[in-house]
Amino acid sequence: MKKKLGLQSIRFEQPPVITSTAAIVGPMEGEGLLTGFFDYVMEDNIHSYASWEKCESYMIEWAVRKAVEKDNSTLEDVDYILAGDLLNQLMATHFAMRSLGRPFLGLYGACSTLAESLLIGSTLIDGGFAQKVAVAVSSHHDAAERQYRFPTEMGVQRPPGAQWTVTGSGSAVVTANGTGPRVTAATVGRVIDLGIKDPNIMGPAMAPAAVDTLWNHLNDTGRTPDYYDMIYTGDLGKVGKQLVVDMMQQKGVDVSANYEDCGCMIYREDQDTHSGASGCASSGIVFASYLYPLLRQGDLKKILLIGTGSLHSPTSYQQKESIPCIAHAVSIEQ
Amino acid sequence: MKKKLGLQSIRFEQPPVITSTAAIVGPMEGEGLLTGFFDYVMEDNIHSYASWEKCESYMIEWAVRKAVEKDNSTLEDVDYILAGDLLNQLMATHFAMRSLGRPFLGLYGACSTLAESLLIGSTLIDGGFAQKVAVAVSSHHDAAERQYRFPTEMGVQRPPGAQWTVTGSGSAVVTANGTGPRVTAATVGRVIDLGIKDPNIMGPAMAPAAVDTLWNHLNDTGRTPDYYDMIYTGDLGKVGKQLVVDMMQQKGVDVSANYEDCGCMIYREDQDTHSGASGCASSGIVFASYLYPLLRQGDLKKILLIGTGSLHSPTSYQQKESIPCIAHAVSIEQ
Repeated sequence: MKKKLGLQSIRFEQPPVITSTAAIVGPMEGEGLLTGFFDYVMEDNIHSYASWEKCESYMIEWAVRKAVEKDNSTLEDVDYILAGDLLNQLMATHFAMRSLGRPFLGLYGACSTLAESLLIGSTLIDGGFAQKVAVAVSSHHDAAERQYRFPTEMGVQRPPGAQWTVTGSGSAVVTANGTGPRVTAATVGRVIDLGIKDPNIMGPAMAPAAVDTLWNHLNDTGRTPDYYDMIYTGDLGKVGKQLVVDMMQQKGVDVSANYEDCGCMIYREDQDTHSGASGCASSGIVFASYLYPLLRQGDLKKILLIGTGSLHSPTSYQQKESIPCIAHAVSIEQ
Repeated sequence: MKKKLGLQSIRFEQPPVITSTAAIVGPMEGEGLLTGFFDYVMEDNIHSYASWEKCESYMIEWAVRKAVEKDNSTLEDVDYILAGDLLNQLMATHFAMRSLGRPFLGLYGACSTLAESLLIGSTLIDGGFAQKVAVAVSSHHDAAERQYRFPTEMGVQRPPGAQWTVTGSGSAVVTANGTGPRVTAATVGRVIDLGIKDPNIMGPAMAPAAVDTLWNHLNDTGRTPDYYDMIYTGDLGKVGKQLVVDMMQQKGVDVSANYEDCGCMIYREDQDTHSGASGCASSGIVFASYLYPLLRQGDLKKILLIGTGSLHSPTSYQQKESIPCIAHAVSIEQ
């Protein structure tokens, strides 16, 4: 099994190429730190749809169509779409897939879904089962808020450690051949739960899962953090990000020089999102709009993207359970 | 791309072997048509847990552990677990994975998840990324009822076309080498929605997706239905099953001689489940407890298992949306 590395990792023999990406966001994201980088910024969070959920579905469909267009391909060239979102029963994804009509594999990794979809999509290509796949993820602040917490209209005060669910969708096309950054290796995460029960503070809940996956990735591949220009986690926010640095330090590994969290790269300080961004679209839009072009231009040569997912449900919270978390990592190299 | 067949199908070069299966069920399933076939029958639907959801999580953990034990393996031999269930945010699966501690990929295909997990798991093995994977699915009547429809305790009268969500979990171990039936080919489904809006009548909603996948499977592989000893769908129930026969007939293909639905194989007529069984565990327990031993003994030599999933959510229903459906197929041959 030449493609398995260590305990949890794989390496690709003919690394699949990410040949295009696309990102669509809401107005708040469009005015944030990455202003000017997105393919499309909606004027409001509903875009004339009858519900936030349907607007989210529109975004994921738009992102897939745009990524395919930027790849100079048609939907018919896409063998499979792999996608997911945060809504119950992947509502946004499924209604988008109804319109797109391509063979589809549904994934649920909460906010780790971008990394999960890149990982599985790359195995389908390197395994010889597909020539081209599209991956996509989405989240929507208002739809997530009312599903996970309180009716959005109530405007419930958020604790300082809380994060703001990103309204947006990111998509990528992965191809067997072509030019662009390549998915060279990946690490499949385990479910880690250190007992945090407050779903308003997901960053600290997810940080141990990110550390577990990063630690195992380094062990499995024999790499040190400086192998990468940058290591990114998906949506730990300020509090979770600091925890990753501290917990890795305790293991004797310094990541402070080249580690950042996508959740800290989206909103300006004065946008008052507290601890930063969260949601499937956190890593989705940062990767699709900002990191991918940097890789493409050679300004970044090697990154490790660690998708981080908080796997609780409102039901598990009501049943007083703690928050199981997961993190999947993909190495992307120019 | 020698492993892609036609538009939506793949064939495995070194077909992965299903080396063991296990099934656990509730008392009603234990007294049904497959009585005596299950590895474990719970005495009641809660098994001393504090909630139905936690009982469902117990079942999926039990099924994975049992399948691994029957494979004469340990959990450490399992490279990855691929699993999913019907609960929001895969609650049953995630808490089971927390206990099992293995690298994990979460899937959501509603009741098509067994086929989806066998499909992706087999690509990981044939692609050279894994030596052994475990797949698992679960559903729980009471947990599903209160999530999708009404508080279970209300005892709302069910329409005649309704199906009964199976309480149970089925798991399988798939290995690169070994003896047993092999996953030889698979077809990835598309989301199909012909406009049915009543979530009490999911069989007819899913039947067109099953027909689309079956039709494309036959076209992609150049096979006729008589290539298979039997073709099984996951959980269409009586009404949906008849629709598959009729719709295939309209396409000029007769499947009446060797087609059955797992949803019609679980409950006795006098158990009053109306149109039959549904849920991820419908195909899960029928395959794990009944079909797998028949394949193993050579009483069945070639089957096509078509997992059928109704992808609606309570939110999409409340927003007056119709029901998007999907079906994934796996060929399993002795």
